[in-house]
Amino acid sequence: KNKLTLLAGPCVIESEELVMEVAGKIKEICDRLNINYVFKSSFDKANRSSIYSYRGPGIEKGLQILQKVKDTYNIPVVTDIHEVWHAEKAAEVVDILQIPAFLCRQTDLLIAAAKTGKAVNIKKGQFLAPWDMKNVVKKFEECGNENIMLCERGSSFGYNTLVVDMRSLLEMREFGYPVVFDATHSVQKPGGKGDTTGGDRQYVSPLMRAALAIGVDAIFAEVHPDPDNAKSDGPNMLKLDELEEILKIAIEINNVVKK
Amino acid sequence: KNKLTLLAGPCVIESEELVMEVAGKIKEICDRLNINYVFKSSFDKANRSSIYSYRGPGIEKGLQILQKVKDTYNIPVVTDIHEVWHAEKAAEVVDILQIPAFLCRQTDLLIAAAKTGKAVNIKKGQFLAPWDMKNVVKKFEECGNENIMLCERGSSFGYNTLVVDMRSLLEMREFGYPVVFDATHSVQKPGGKGDTTGGDRQYVSPLMRAALAIGVDAIFAEVHPDPDNAKSDGPNMLKLDELEEILKIAIEINNVVKK
Amino acid sequence: KNKLTLLAGPCVIESEELVMEVAGKIKEICDRLNINYVFKSSFDKANRSSIYSYRGPGIEKGLQILQKVKDTYNIPVVTDIHEVWHAEKAAEVVDILQIPAFLCRQTDLLIAAAKTGKAVNIKKGQFLAPWDMKNVVKKFEECGNENIMLCERGSSFGYNTLVVDMRSLLEMREFGYPVVFDATHSVQKPGGKGDTTGGDRQYVSPLMRAALAIGVDAIFAEVHPDPDNAKSDGPNMLKLDELEEILKIAIEINNVVKK
Amino acid sequence: KNKLTLLAGPCVIESEELVMEVAGKIKEICDRLNINYVFKSSFDKANRSSIYSYRGPGIEKGLQILQKVKDTYNIPVVTDIHEVWHAEKAAEVVDILQIPAFLCRQTDLLIAAAKTGKAVNIKKGQFLAPWDMKNVVKKFEECGNENIMLCERGSSFGYNTLVVDMRSLLEMREFGYPVVFDATHSVQKPGGKGDTTGGDRQYVSPLMRAALAIGVDAIFAEVHPDPDNAKSDGPNMLKLDELEEILKIAIEINNVVKK
Repeated sequence: KNKLTLLAGPCVIESEELVMEVAGKIKEICDRLNINYVFKSSFDKANRSSIYSYRGPGIEKGLQILQKVKDTYNIPVVTDIHEVWHAEKAAEVVDILQIPAFLCRQTDLLIAAAKTGKAVNIKKGQFLAPWDMKNVVKKFEECGNENIMLCERGSSFGYNTLVVDMRSLLEMREFGYPVVFDATHSVQKPGGKGDTTGGDRQYVSPLMRAALAIGVDAIFAEVHPDPDNAKSDGPNMLKLDELEEILKIAIEINNVVKK
Repeated sequence: KNKLTLLAGPCVIESEELVMEVAGKIKEICDRLNINYVFKSSFDKANRSSIYSYRGPGIEKGLQILQKVKDTYNIPVVTDIHEVWHAEKAAEVVDILQIPAFLCRQTDLLIAAAKTGKAVNIKKGQFLAPWDMKNVVKKFEECGNENIMLCERGSSFGYNTLVVDMRSLLEMREFGYPVVFDATHSVQKPGGKGDTTGGDRQYVSPLMRAALAIGVDAIFAEVHPDPDNAKSDGPNMLKLDELEEILKIAIEINNVVKK
Repeated sequence: KNKLTLLAGPCVIESEELVMEVAGKIKEICDRLNINYVFKSSFDKANRSSIYSYRGPGIEKGLQILQKVKDTYNIPVVTDIHEVWHAEKAAEVVDILQIPAFLCRQTDLLIAAAKTGKAVNIKKGQFLAPWDMKNVVKKFEECGNENIMLCERGSSFGYNTLVVDMRSLLEMREFGYPVVFDATHSVQKPGGKGDTTGGDRQYVSPLMRAALAIGVDAIFAEVHPDPDNAKSDGPNMLKLDELEEILKIAIEINNVVKK
Repeated sequence: KNKLTLLAGPCVIESEELVMEVAGKIKEICDRLNINYVFKSSFDKANRSSIYSYRGPGIEKGLQILQKVKDTYNIPVVTDIHEVWHAEKAAEVVDILQIPAFLCRQTDLLIAAAKTGKAVNIKKGQFLAPWDMKNVVKKFEECGNENIMLCERGSSFGYNTLVVDMRSLLEMREFGYPVVFDATHSVQKPGGKGDTTGGDRQYVSPLMRAALAIGVDAIFAEVHPDPDNAKSDGPNMLKLDELEEILKIAIEINNVVKK
């Protein structure tokens, strides 16, 4: 039961080829390392900094590709939703719905997600204290869905900077649900590149180790074969071919803490 | 042209009676003080801290009441929208659409608002630097809508606290659009009361004066005859019967700065 | 009694000539505008970012120059102290001792300043909440010195950034002492230029107006005939030949608020 | 060479008995766990929140007690200094001088510490970015003392709150010196109890594990047999009889990361 769970994949569904490649390779790595793997990718990046940036294939095409990931690799998938009507539709395919950080206070979106009965990964807003998530949790409990995970992805720290308060993982676990550490969005520099979000990929692995040392139930990480040419979140995504080495040490820390 | 504009009214449309009372009284005050008055109230509080809190009458009933305000007092009205489909519907009645701070990065909502051709008051997210609003502005400009206002309502400052960086009003004015200071949400203490948002009404008037001394085009303020018994945002709303005194000094500062 | 007080002068005593020029010119301006003028300059910059930066003439020479300012212009002077033994020595010349922000918790320095019986301007640390100043105040009161002023100069806001929470001026006034707004250090960007502190001079005047609109007893501002070539704090000091225009509007706002 | 170093002891030298007890017990623990142990305690708490709080035995008596620790247990000791003249005097006894966070920009204190030739543990100010420590480092290098350690103890995060940005440990290591994580001051709530500093002892062990997972050279922790009755920093000090269990897991994480 102390097995680590990893939610990972490219930020956005750039193409079926990319998705299948990344899903397949991470699955192999997770099998070797005895990690539960959940594939993650977005069908739409609904809150890009710039209107000129790539958004994704949309919900129809995106869900088809996610279905193919499930069929091909027999792994669960998670994707984020942005509008009330997405919830039911996405729930037909995905195993875990995800609530974006900016939207974690939008009551109707939470209710729609909750009512699908699916597991839901809720990202804590950059503007919320960890104890504020109590009210978010209650919105799910009132809908009868207690199959939720609470995810830390950094807090606003002055302008164009996020900081991870590692205590938040323990604060949020007090609510009785699994906690997830989002290791790649936590190193974003929002607005840091003017019209796109910057980031510091070099800190993903250290922060992941720190969160595992604190004790988390799952790690979230965006991974791409060629982040510098990715269509979204390049500066903070992990390189696919560096993932296994990073996870090896992560597993060891997880084992020390959970034994 | 240096006439001050005030966007004000009760946080949420609690009832037609309340709305009509507040709109009428503030209109009288603004007429006496030579202020442009825009009535503001919300048909739905879509991101309440708690699922148990009052949300409002909904879009249908809410817009009917806003229409009555227009018909009765011959003043423009502003209301906030939360979903793409709200934009067109609300635009049939209101003169100014408002984008909530948490949603200021949701591209589709911005586009939908822009495409109505209506004026739009865009609240800067608590998680954004003022210069990050450049990208938000571009989303509107790309849609051909340059009838926008940029509104400061405080930035995240540690947990459960907002701080107003008064420089942001000048930073945002660099984009060439009017800037609005939201004097009541700026004194919120998000999550400060556990399951509701707290606030410090005593600082509304001083911060309003400060923003006018910096130089803004409009003031936004929520006002209620009995804030302590209001259904939303009570701790930070102004008392209706204190508004005139507060505005009198505000006007004087506005006149000093804009002469 | 609503007359505004201005504490102003070059950041550091670069030379007797500079000091005499600035003191004389600001005195003329303040006489014209009916402002109480207190000359400010430092004999030692004891906490420069870089060890290579200019520190000042030292306490002996510095106090001689400050004495000459008093003798020549018949105005009070304020200077900051950094070590316990400075207090008594500086008190022989200056009218107001100043406690630097970084040192506002150093009990012995506060006691030494208090025991001189001189007025003391205490800068609130960038790391303190306004209500934390209660304990600083008590250190003075316990020493029998209630001739103090509390000064806001910005709070840490993420990295390399300060933000002014204008509410702090009112919070601190609750302790019953005059409050001062430091308009030039508040626009510093600590560490912002790598090995020196940066700043944004353009915001000095707007923030000064805002603080006066809130209602303060005094304004602190560093002023230099040629800030870009000053030996300390150049990026945030005001230009001497722009001071009068800035003060003219400041006075008007002060008059609106204090009438 | 991957052996962990621990700087630990009671916050302040409350009495010789307390110091000898704590030093002896922690030494035994560190011997069992193969940790380099450096005893830490302060002879004077020079920046207490309140003037009414206990400050310590003073430098004379304090150094005598630290000498006894060295003589009795044959371990190095570290203590913090607050004034220039402390440096040379303390250096006669202690092995490591420590610069308090609030004082890390006071050039003369740094120079005085550097010139003793002793090792110096420099706490990063709560108001500094990790990269700002470059200038602090240069002050030591210019004095020819490269025997320094850089210590993270939390950054200002809004009012009355500190947050640890774990990335700072890696940022500071870029300067080429050992980095220390101060696990107990990092959980302080400055001013959190009105007239004393609060804290959250429960987070000391998790944050210590996190820092070791990031990779640090030494851990700093204040330890007391009965923190709730300690004369300083009680809320954040570790309990002496819980230390061994905490260090056991810390060592394991250290071994995973440094192997």
